[in-house]
Formats: sequence, C-alpha cells, structure tokens
Amino acid sequence: MYAIRLGDDGAELRPLEPWHAEEFLAHLDRGRDFVNQYIPFGSRATDVTTAREALQRYADMRAADTASVHGLWLDGTLVGGVLTLNFDAANGSCEVGCWLEPAATGRGLVTRAMRVLIDWAVEQRGIHRVEWVAASGNTASIAVARRLGMTRDGVRRAAHLHHGVRHDLEVWSVLAPEWRARDRHPDPR
Amino acid sequence: MYAIRLGDDGAELRPLEPWHAEEFLAHLDRGRDFVNQYIPFGSRATDVTTAREALQRYADMRAADTASVHGLWLDGTLVGGVLTLNFDAANGSCEVGCWLEPAATGRGLVTRAMRVLIDWAVEQRGIHRVEWVAASGNTASIAVARRLGMTRDGVRRAAHLHHGVRHDLEVWSVLAPEWRARDRHPDPR
Amino acid sequence: MYAIRLGDDGAELRPLEPWHAEEFLAHLDRGRDFVNQYIPFGSRATDVTTAREALQRYADMRAADTASVHGLWLDGTLVGGVLTLNFDAANGSCEVGCWLEPAATGRGLVTRAMRVLIDWAVEQRGIHRVEWVAASGNTASIAVARRLGMTRDGVRRAAHLHHGVRHDLEVWSVLAPEWRARDRHPDPR
Amino acid sequence: MYAIRLGDDGAELRPLEPWHAEEFLAHLDRGRDFVNQYIPFGSRATDVTTAREALQRYADMRAADTASVHGLWLDGTLVGGVLTLNFDAANGSCEVGCWLEPAATGRGLVTRAMRVLIDWAVEQRGIHRVEWVAASGNTASIAVARRLGMTRDGVRRAAHLHHGVRHDLEVWSVLAPEWRARDRHPDPR
Amino acid sequence: MYAIRLGDDGAELRPLEPWHAEEFLAHLDRGRDFVNQYIPFGSRATDVTTAREALQRYADMRAADTASVHGLWLDGTLVGGVLTLNFDAANGSCEVGCWLEPAATGRGLVTRAMRVLIDWAVEQRGIHRVEWVAASGNTASIAVARRLGMTRDGVRRAAHLHHGVRHDLEVWSVLAPEWRARDRHPDPR
Amino acid sequence: MYAIRLGDDGAELRPLEPWHAEEFLAHLDRGRDFVNQYIPFGSRATDVTTAREALQRYADMRAADTASVHGLWLDGTLVGGVLTLNFDAANGSCEVGCWLEPAATGRGLVTRAMRVLIDWAVEQRGIHRVEWVAASGNTASIAVARRLGMTRDGVRRAAHLHHGVRHDLEVWSVLAPEWRARDRHPDPR
Repeated sequence: MYAIRLGDDGAELRPLEPWHAEEFLAHLDRGRDFVNQYIPFGSRATDVTTAREALQRYADMRAADTASVHGLWLDGTLVGGVLTLNFDAANGSCEVGCWLEPAATGRGLVTRAMRVLIDWAVEQRGIHRVEWVAASGNTASIAVARRLGMTRDGVRRAAHLHHGVRHDLEVWSVLAPEWRARDRHPDPR
Repeated sequence: MYAIRLGDDGAELRPLEPWHAEEFLAHLDRGRDFVNQYIPFGSRATDVTTAREALQRYADMRAADTASVHGLWLDGTLVGGVLTLNFDAANGSCEVGCWLEPAATGRGLVTRAMRVLIDWAVEQRGIHRVEWVAASGNTASIAVARRLGMTRDGVRRAAHLHHGVRHDLEVWSVLAPEWRARDRHPDPR
Repeated sequence: MYAIRLGDDGAELRPLEPWHAEEFLAHLDRGRDFVNQYIPFGSRATDVTTAREALQRYADMRAADTASVHGLWLDGTLVGGVLTLNFDAANGSCEVGCWLEPAATGRGLVTRAMRVLIDWAVEQRGIHRVEWVAASGNTASIAVARRLGMTRDGVRRAAHLHHGVRHDLEVWSVLAPEWRARDRHPDPR
Repeated sequence: MYAIRLGDDGAELRPLEPWHAEEFLAHLDRGRDFVNQYIPFGSRATDVTTAREALQRYADMRAADTASVHGLWLDGTLVGGVLTLNFDAANGSCEVGCWLEPAATGRGLVTRAMRVLIDWAVEQRGIHRVEWVAASGNTASIAVARRLGMTRDGVRRAAHLHHGVRHDLEVWSVLAPEWRARDRHPDPR
Repeated sequence: MYAIRLGDDGAELRPLEPWHAEEFLAHLDRGRDFVNQYIPFGSRATDVTTAREALQRYADMRAADTASVHGLWLDGTLVGGVLTLNFDAANGSCEVGCWLEPAATGRGLVTRAMRVLIDWAVEQRGIHRVEWVAASGNTASIAVARRLGMTRDGVRRAAHLHHGVRHDLEVWSVLAPEWRARDRHPDPR
Repeated sequence: MYAIRLGDDGAELRPLEPWHAEEFLAHLDRGRDFVNQYIPFGSRATDVTTAREALQRYADMRAADTASVHGLWLDGTLVGGVLTLNFDAANGSCEVGCWLEPAATGRGLVTRAMRVLIDWAVEQRGIHRVEWVAASGNTASIAVARRLGMTRDGVRRAAHLHHGVRHDLEVWSVLAPEWRARDRHPDPR
C-alpha cells in the first residue's frame, strides 16, 4: 500500500515482498542475463516457489532489521529495485545496492531511488556510513556511486567469484556529513 | 521512509517497526489506560526492551505475511495505529483493528487509515472478507465498524477475558463486493 | 494405552498420535470425500509420510497446549475423531470439532465423544466458552451443535474458502454455566 | 480426561501434563528428599514456573515420541508416576522408570502402573526390550524390577554422579516374549 | 590443520568435518559392507550431500559438546575413525567408538587412536567413566575393548536391531583411576 | 587433544572451545583493556557464563563452517588467539584476525600462528583471498598484516564504531598465488 513517486514518468518505489513472487519472477525472466552479469541477485529464483523463497529471505532480514528490498515500478511494471544489506544500526553502517532490467536503464531510476533510500538511512535511522560495492568491470554501477557523490575507499582484490571468474570489488562510500552537505549543494545533474 | 498522507491536518500512516521502540513506548505511556480499556494491545510493552519485543512480534508476523502494523503520526507524533491480524491470503480473509491515544480521538484518524488499509487488502492482496472484532461495550470501536460500512455477523458470547472480566465480542465484516460498491457510492460523512 | 468407553457398542475414544499414521491413512482413504465435503481435515495426508506429518502437527500443538486430537475407534477400527483447536487456557476458551467416515455416522458417536471432551475442558481445564464452527450447509455438523445444547452466536459470512467455493461459517457456543446446567437436566435424546 | 483405574483403592494412572504444574510442584514438595535420594527427577522444579518447564520437557519428548510421563493419583492426589525414556520404536526398545512420594509407598502402585505401561509398549508399540536402570543402592527400585520379572543385564560401574557421589547403575530388562510368557503364568504376588 | 601422528607408519588422527564429505564418501564406499556389519555408521551417507549431512550431524553435536568424530588417515587416505558419543562432562561419562575400512585393519590403528582420545577425555575433560559398546558377535571390537584394559560391565540383551536381526550389546568400561594405573604399567603389547 | 607447536618457546596453537570458558575468562581478565583497545573481542565475556556463551558462538559458527577460533598457549597458559571469520569456502574467501594479552606480545606469536592458519585455509580449504581488517590506529595489527606479506586494498572510512569513536578500517589481503610465492621466497624475518 506504500509507494513513493520518484518523478513524473510513472516511476515508483514500493516495498518488495514475498506476495510479489509472480511479478518478481516475470521481471527477472525479462532481465536475468543482464542482472546476473556481475551479481548473483535473483539467480536462484527460477520459478514461483524459488522466487518467493528469495523474497522471503529478504522479508526475514527486514524483520531482523539487517536488510530491506524495495521494488522499482515503472507505469505499474516491476523493472528493478534497490536494497540495503548488512544494515547495522548500532554501528551506524550499511551497504546499499540495486538491480535493473535492461529496458529500465538510462532513466536515472536507481539514482532517484537511492537518494530516497540513503536519506532515510541517514536521517531516520542514524546511519553514518553508506557503502556501495561493485565489481571493477561494472562501470554502470560505479557511475551510480560517483553520481551519488561517493568516494572510492579501495579495491578488495579478487574478492568475488561469479560465474567461475574472480572479480575485484570496488568499495565506495558516503558519510552522513558528506551526504547532508551534498543535499545543500546538489550537483547539476 | 514510506508514509501515506491521510489529509491536510498532518496525519500520516507509516509502517511501525522495532526501531520505533522508544517512540512507541512514549506513545503507550501517554495512552495506556485508555488503550487497554478493552484490549491488551501493548500492555506487555512497559520499557524500551519490551516495547521492542512487542514490535518485533509484529515484524515477525509481517515477514510471515500473517499480520502488519502501521502507526498513525499526527504532526510527527505517534498517536495510534491500525493493523491486520490473522491475515490469510490463501483463504482471502483477514481481521483489522486499531488503537489510539486519547488526545488523537475525534478526528476520524482510524476511519481514514482503515480505508487505506482495507483498500490495499481488497484490491492488492485479494482479500474477500475483512473482519472487525470489538468488545460489546466498546462503542467507539463499533462505531468505526459501522462507519466503514460493515455488517454485524454476530456476537461471540463471553469470548474475551480482559482485566478479570468476560466480554462478549461483536464480529463485524465487510466483503469485497460490498467494499467496492461503497467506494462508488460513499456515505456523506 | 488410554481409552474411554463411550457405550456398549464397542466405541472408544483414545489419543490419536503420530504412530497411528498407517491406521489414520486407511481411515481417511475410506472417508476422504465425505470428510472433505466441508472441511480440509486430513486432505494433505495422502500417504503414510504425510499422514504422520498431519498427526505430528497435532502432537506439536498438544505439547504447546493449543490443540488435541482424539480418535474414535469402533470395534477396534479408527472411524473418526474429535479435537480441540485454538485452546487457550488463560482466556478460558477453545474450539471443538469432529470428523467421521461415512460408515460410522448415525450412531451418535461424535455427540458421545464430545460430551467427554467438553466435560474435560470445562471441569478439568477451566474453559468457560466452547465454540463450534460449521459451514452453513453442513447440516449434520450443525445438528451436533444443537444436540450439545449450544447457542448460535452468528454467521461469519463468506469466511471459509473450500474447494474454490466461499462458505458462510456458523459459530455456535456453550458456556460453562450452561454446560453444567444441562448436565443436571439432560435432554431426552 | 484419560484415566486408568489401577485397582479398588482409588489409584489411577493419567497423562501428566504441563497444566498440572501446581499439582506437580505440591507433590514434589511433599516428597523431594525421598524422590531425589538416587535420581534427580524433578529437582529443577522448585516453583510453578520451573515445574511447568519440567513437565514441558516431557511434553516435547512425548510429541517427538521419545518419552512419556504418567502421574499416579491416589484418591485424587498426585503421589508419583511412571515414565518411558529413550523410547525408540524403530529399534524396538525403551527404558521405563518411576518415582513416588513417601506416603504412597508400600502399596504396589508402581508395579501396577508399570504393568499397564509395559503392556502398552510391548503390545501396542512393538517394543521388544524394556529396560530398567537403578542405582545399586536403590533396593526399592531393584525390587520392582525383580517383581516385574526382569533380568539383571549387568552393572554400569560408576555411571551416575548424583549429589557429588558416583553410583553404579544396575541395568535390568525384560524382552517381549518373556513379558508375554509371564502374563500367561503370573507370579503369585 | 590439526593432526596427531600415531606412529611411524604414516597414521594420523585429525578432526573429521563436513568439508571432508567427498573424502568420507569415497572411504565409506570402499568399506561400507564391512563397516555396516554390526553398526549403521555412515549407512545414510550414500552420496556427497548425505555424506555432508552425516558429518554435519557430528559437527552440530561437537558444537554442543555431546560428541566428536576424528578421522584416521593412513599415508594421506582416510581409512576410518574414532568418536565420542553421549559425551556428558557434567556427569563425567562418555561412550567411545570406532570404524575402519577393511584395508586398514590389523595395524592397531584404532587402539592407538583410542589411547589419544581416552587420554584427552580423562585428563583434559574430567571424564571418569569411558564406555565401549559392541554387538556380542563383533569379536574384533570386543578385542579392542579388552586391549584398552576395559572391564565387561554386562550384556544388554537384544538391545540393537540391525539389518532386521536383534543383537545383544556388550557394555565395557574403563574408569579414570584404572586408565591412569594402566598408563604407569602398560601391557606388553 | 589437538595442538600445534609453534616453536621451541612453549607456544602452542589449539582449538579454543566452550569448555575452556574459565581459562578464557582468566585470560581476558588479564588483558581486557589491551585487547579491547580497537576491537570488542570478548568484551561481553565478563563471567564464566558469558565467557562460555562467547565461545559457544564460535563453536556454532565453526559447525556452520563460517568461522573458527584457535587459542595460543604459552607454557600452558592461554595468552591470545587467532581466528577465521566470514569463512566462505564456495567463494574462496575469508577474513583472519587475532588478539593477545599484553604479556604475550613481542614474540611473533600471532605471525607464527597466522602462517599455520593461512596455510590451512589456502592449501586445505581452497581459499583464494585472505583478508585482514584493522583500525587505522592499530599499528601493531597493521604491522602483522605487512609481515604476512599482505597488500593494503584500501581504507573503509569511519566503518567501525568502538567505545563511541568512529575508526577507519584498513583492509589488507593476500591472494593464494602470492602466499605460495612467498613460501618459496620467505622474507628474512
């Protein structure tokens, strides 16, 4: 029942929950190869049952306040999403991430959603450090981190095994004071 | 981060979650006697730890898709809430309920919130029967059921023991077709 | 090892437990269509493994003191049973129910067993309200409620989805003082 | 609701369940020193909460079909009980045991109850070997084993630490064919 | 990473853990009929998944300090193992056991490993009674008990059902003072 | 029972397990302030019960193959330890860490233990990337990473809240080929 309008083009952010299993599966089936290029997101969700299990894992993490997943709907179609991971309110840190099906790229959907998500983490939940992790070759993902005003903290060499290949993982972050300063002087994009 | 405006008077509906424990406790402390007149809602939440446990039980039920709890904020202060209980998507049925602190009564907050909640249950989740249960003496609660266009199904005699007294429980309900018809011809209130 | 004679016709009431799985399955196979006319009782128990799982669910609820299931044996053959559900000793309330295979109907088996079960609930466990729930079309079940001296509390409209059809559920009940009064002045049946 | 008369002196065997916590505690308080002479039975049950926990552990084992506990009532007072332990239907073996408060000794209560329990284990549940374990110094317990027609299998030296002292444990047993033969030619006691 | 040399013939004792599943399976496949002559050890481990599950059960018991399993490697090949069972530090008692594939017999591997294991149990963990259980027909196993200086406590008649046949189980034991005395005056073997 | 000699000075590496609770507590009590300067290791272990709980958490993670903890004993006294964390055999990555009480510093104990641990991770468990994380101010810890031939991957800014202060976390790593190359050309230390 909750939804956040992300602009005038029909883009909305909503909680993504186990009862969306069929919609989630249809979305994955449209974007599976693209989504799984660098990350295994949703790769175990290959039918309605496993799609529900994937969403249930997020629902359980949300109940434990360690993660949350939010879908991006465009004109009523689920086309991707953003999420928090390793959410640790006591330590004031979390990771954020995203995924999109190909048809939804190029519109700044993730950047718009991420601003809402990071605002909430920083202002409502007291998160001090928001982290972004991306395979070094995933230039689109790294571009989002840069667009969000993040700083590159380093490269965890060979940290991720995906489809039999070892990938370096870039670690980017934005701290609460940086995020707030940027809010006052937004970049022209 | 999600919020639904319920009107122009600063009333909002938001997910109520374990991290709201301190706010939830302060709210209960303002309204405990009033809230617990007919129902034990929040009665075990007497400090921050037990307030968090109470909200955690709802968070776990939400993860299991059997209940959900939503807070009512008035000008930024938590003043009550609405909830689903015994949510059974396969059977197409659920119960709904509410609570308010005294200062927030008389504004139709619950009725407004309940319309959003029932709309979601009926239109998004396929619920066919929405049930309302209230002690026979709880005239304020029964008035809400009537205002929502519900029908009285019966009285479960002596079904609820509260503060050492047995209460009859009135059962009211609205079915999906009735809810939709009412949407097209809303009552003048 | 426990058994309660219900009369001179070889009818006995005994705890029905997971180790009865084969006997329970054979009984269900004789009465499945009849038993499942209005309720899904035992419908998931289609082989010895699932029959044991069904009985295990009751065994777990019995350990939690929230339900109990008792078989009816006629001349050594399991032909049906009675059960408590939503047993809530703190609130002083429970639901009771029953099922029979066709060959065992017409002998008052359920009524006899139910008297034993309700006596125990009321006199041993302090239950104040015993509830009976039946689909409106299930005249046989409703006749038992009437025979037990219960009162119709109301009709939960469209509350039960069974085999794709919505059924109204009648709610009947007997309260402890009524039950005890009836014991002193039993009806002539 | 289940009860088995053990004779004409008002002795009955009934399932002992968590809701008997207060009655169980009162009984233990009358017999604690006597009962705990050789075994720790009930020693952790020192108030209603811990008494309920002790009975809950048995309830959980009963649900798992690995143990069961049955109270002995004499003229309506709980005075002791018998139990199965390490119940293993697949292997056809179990242990049985007992406890009594002092006022209930000398009446053969345990022997009578044990005959019912072993009959059930052997004839209903297919147990081939029923084992009895007693500290070597516990002559009363060993006398029961002998009275039940059991054979001494051996002595597990120093196997039990109780109140800071190591006790040898005698192991006695009766096998199904022996039990049945004894039924046909009962001893004169 | 831990390993204990058991002599100059390349025999080593190491923790056997879930990640050894493939090696464990290959070993079982070489010795299954021999190992399962009297005991069901590893009989459910018939592919890598079930082999890992079998080792996981031991890993969980080790975490609970109720059992431990240690592999015997001969020149880098897993050929058998020793284990503790029913480990009860509070009571000062445990059971020990072993298994070997045929090619590894006749070298005293188990006896050597068992001395290390019992030394640890007695001297590090305060175990007073170490028990050995073997089917009466398992002369090789009983010979090890004798070689370890154990005493026969008795015979639990018909206590073990294996492959449809009931076996008597011999119970042997060694107590801490006996074990220490033997250390000072080792037998000539 | 397992132990690995780390040199001629009486230093040994052994599994650290829940039954070491008293020894672990005494060790922490000698070094608590020093150990907790940059990390919360053992800070919740303030009596025997909480010390056992701390070790039990590691035991459970070890059973799940996600972590392991190993104590360093010097002449029979527990003086510190090394551990694996976030052990992920499927991904080929893990973190390693350490702690020491003050009296045990300056002897290269951790470096020696770490070589054994990393050798095992890389050669036995197929770990490709071994990570070391240290607060930027923890020069002693960073010196160990350097001594182990690790490379600094970056600095996760403000990632760790400890004693109310935010610390940058340096991330160092060594990859399997680097580790093996270093084995062939060890540094002169």
